[in-house]
Amino acid sequence: MPFASLKEECLAANLALPKTGLVDLTFGNVSVADPERRVFAIKPSGVSYDELRSSHIVVLDFEGNVIEGTLRPSSDTPTHRYLYQHFAGIRAVVHTHSRNAVAFAQAGMDLPCLGTTHCDYFNGPVPVTRGMTPEETGGDYEWETGKVIVERFVGIDPLEVPAVLVRNHGPFAWGPTAAKAVETALALEIIADMALKTLSLNPTAPPAPPHLLEKHFSRKHGPSAYYGQ
Amino acid sequence: MPFASLKEECLAANLALPKTGLVDLTFGNVSVADPERRVFAIKPSGVSYDELRSSHIVVLDFEGNVIEGTLRPSSDTPTHRYLYQHFAGIRAVVHTHSRNAVAFAQAGMDLPCLGTTHCDYFNGPVPVTRGMTPEETGGDYEWETGKVIVERFVGIDPLEVPAVLVRNHGPFAWGPTAAKAVETALALEIIADMALKTLSLNPTAPPAPPHLLEKHFSRKHGPSAYYGQ
Amino acid sequence: MPFASLKEECLAANLALPKTGLVDLTFGNVSVADPERRVFAIKPSGVSYDELRSSHIVVLDFEGNVIEGTLRPSSDTPTHRYLYQHFAGIRAVVHTHSRNAVAFAQAGMDLPCLGTTHCDYFNGPVPVTRGMTPEETGGDYEWETGKVIVERFVGIDPLEVPAVLVRNHGPFAWGPTAAKAVETALALEIIADMALKTLSLNPTAPPAPPHLLEKHFSRKHGPSAYYGQ
Amino acid sequence: MPFASLKEECLAANLALPKTGLVDLTFGNVSVADPERRVFAIKPSGVSYDELRSSHIVVLDFEGNVIEGTLRPSSDTPTHRYLYQHFAGIRAVVHTHSRNAVAFAQAGMDLPCLGTTHCDYFNGPVPVTRGMTPEETGGDYEWETGKVIVERFVGIDPLEVPAVLVRNHGPFAWGPTAAKAVETALALEIIADMALKTLSLNPTAPPAPPHLLEKHFSRKHGPSAYYGQ
Repeated sequence: MPFASLKEECLAANLALPKTGLVDLTFGNVSVADPERRVFAIKPSGVSYDELRSSHIVVLDFEGNVIEGTLRPSSDTPTHRYLYQHFAGIRAVVHTHSRNAVAFAQAGMDLPCLGTTHCDYFNGPVPVTRGMTPEETGGDYEWETGKVIVERFVGIDPLEVPAVLVRNHGPFAWGPTAAKAVETALALEIIADMALKTLSLNPTAPPAPPHLLEKHFSRKHGPSAYYGQ
Repeated sequence: MPFASLKEECLAANLALPKTGLVDLTFGNVSVADPERRVFAIKPSGVSYDELRSSHIVVLDFEGNVIEGTLRPSSDTPTHRYLYQHFAGIRAVVHTHSRNAVAFAQAGMDLPCLGTTHCDYFNGPVPVTRGMTPEETGGDYEWETGKVIVERFVGIDPLEVPAVLVRNHGPFAWGPTAAKAVETALALEIIADMALKTLSLNPTAPPAPPHLLEKHFSRKHGPSAYYGQ
Repeated sequence: MPFASLKEECLAANLALPKTGLVDLTFGNVSVADPERRVFAIKPSGVSYDELRSSHIVVLDFEGNVIEGTLRPSSDTPTHRYLYQHFAGIRAVVHTHSRNAVAFAQAGMDLPCLGTTHCDYFNGPVPVTRGMTPEETGGDYEWETGKVIVERFVGIDPLEVPAVLVRNHGPFAWGPTAAKAVETALALEIIADMALKTLSLNPTAPPAPPHLLEKHFSRKHGPSAYYGQ
Repeated sequence: MPFASLKEECLAANLALPKTGLVDLTFGNVSVADPERRVFAIKPSGVSYDELRSSHIVVLDFEGNVIEGTLRPSSDTPTHRYLYQHFAGIRAVVHTHSRNAVAFAQAGMDLPCLGTTHCDYFNGPVPVTRGMTPEETGGDYEWETGKVIVERFVGIDPLEVPAVLVRNHGPFAWGPTAAKAVETALALEIIADMALKTLSLNPTAPPAPPHLLEKHFSRKHGPSAYYGQ
């Protein structure tokens, strides 16, 4: 059972999605990678959360070949795979259609950093991608989705801003473990709710000042972290 | 028991409504048809969801005659019946007053297609009907409601856009099974929530581009469908 | 036990409030009257819903004298009493601080009739009272609250519009039974949610036309009622 | 066990936070003081609510020395400590990132007093602090947070307005017991929801008039209090 723990971690994180309220109907999936072996486990396509078992989880290599499992992997698999190839240091990817994050993706707006809840998770705004071209959409669509995400992170460290909003679509989040990636996806949704309400009150609400962002992000992350509620 | 399975399917779908949160108080009903026999089963009037049993379900023919059942059918029955007569290929109809969809119906706005969650369910905007005239309202009101729905679908394929917003009223959704029609009614409510928030952030948010709509709708529907989360 | 059934009905309706989500913390109370005996039962002050028992319910006459019970009646009792004296035909009064209805009360806006969900419960807008004067507030405040409510219903039949929004305060609803008054208070909150979202989409959304209001109200109420979902 | 009851009160209030829905993930903490002994108990850092036990609670003196407990106190401890030193008469402090209150903090707006639900808890608007300077943020940040709160209360009695919004951050609330401080934090979140919706309907909604504020606050607080629902 060379992939048993990878599949268990993947299963647990997929089952966490409907419990958090992040996922309506079946709009979501989680994958978990073993970057040293260049493999990842992902939810199969068309299995409901109620029925999902460890044995259903599909394992692929970073080139897209199925290594283990008899079901078809999620149709979003090529996006996950592109992220593993290009974002060194991530071990898990979560995709949802969580409603508040989708609202920013559909509005074509970066999620601005308006306060410390945001600063605790993301070292800057959560960026929205550009729209995809007819060629990209008509080609290998899910793979091209990965490309427009990575293109958007030129000049942004994906380990410091561990999420993105795909325009007219929704969020992807990632992290060092599946549980942490799910937590980040949930934090993103909460922060997007706060931002929606803030901008409703004050459409020109300024972002949190840089020194506040730096303070909050660094007290939770990096060598001088000391934070805990 | 010639209609036992039809009544069971109808019962299960009606009981699903309050569980999904789509229905407040008693604002909703589901019917299921057997188009070959030209009959349909529908919730009776004035029975609470708690007490609803298969034996309460009323069966009518497409001409409106009660075939089985002793209770009065839902007062919305003529609207359901009109849809079965005119939308070939549908087998179930769901009516709710779900709050976000009602907001678009009351605002007199089509629900625009702003992103892929919408594209996955509806091949274009979900249309709002025109207002009903005093003559229509004062006549056979629920039957006339069906007529303004069908009138609105000139040029729209009801199998590709399986829902409508009746102006100043609320949504009807339909589908090939009662469970699928309920899923579509739920997806409509979720998408309307996303759209409300998107338009709050950006009142001029553009619709998803046609190539994205075509890609998402066709990967879930039709001969080249391959989608599964 | 001359008031046993009145107290039981009052208890059941008070206990229904937190279950419906209408009441946060302890912001609410229900009373039930026996208009022929000119008495009413009401929640006592300072007893939590968890601990509320039939024996705690206080019974007063329409002149405000306590007839049965050892606890102090709710401080809102004079408002309830004023309504029983002046709105012939009502048997129960519910007061909440439900959030959406409060929003209209705080905005100083009548709740407009924007669609059929509203028409099914209220034959016209739910009115907001004028602000109370320093004299009214500094005098017998809760009694004066009843007076500004009744003043607002000049030209409105309280049996056809069974709720009000007290400005800068919140809703009162009433009805022929405690259960029906609680249902109306809940419908009011749902309709206010729909109206908030409608006006967010379209600040100039017109009211439902008069013929639609008349049709929906009369199919549920009065001699020619036939409605049932 | 000289601090057993203090720790139990602190534990119970911390456990109440996720139950109320005030706290997402781990965004919150409660402390309880014994002002005569000049000590306070506070949640430890990095312990989840599921696992939190009385033995984990940390006790410190008003000078910041740990008196009892082996875990690290919450990183927000210096803010709590500053408030105990400067707001005579408070015995408990609650910090959350509750979403509606955060929206006002991020919008840089005082929470206005728009109606009686607000008046029942706060004798005037709930103030927002000024932004913190780079020097304050880069120094003893959590201690400086306490200072900007206290600075904001010049001319405001913290016993009559028992909460604050820290700009770009979130709310702190306080009270005579931990349970009452949690109730105030919950009331603040509810009132902020009502205010968000009110200002969405009417951006220039005026505050409740002073005589209404005075009436409601005084009927619940002070020598002539008589209020109870």
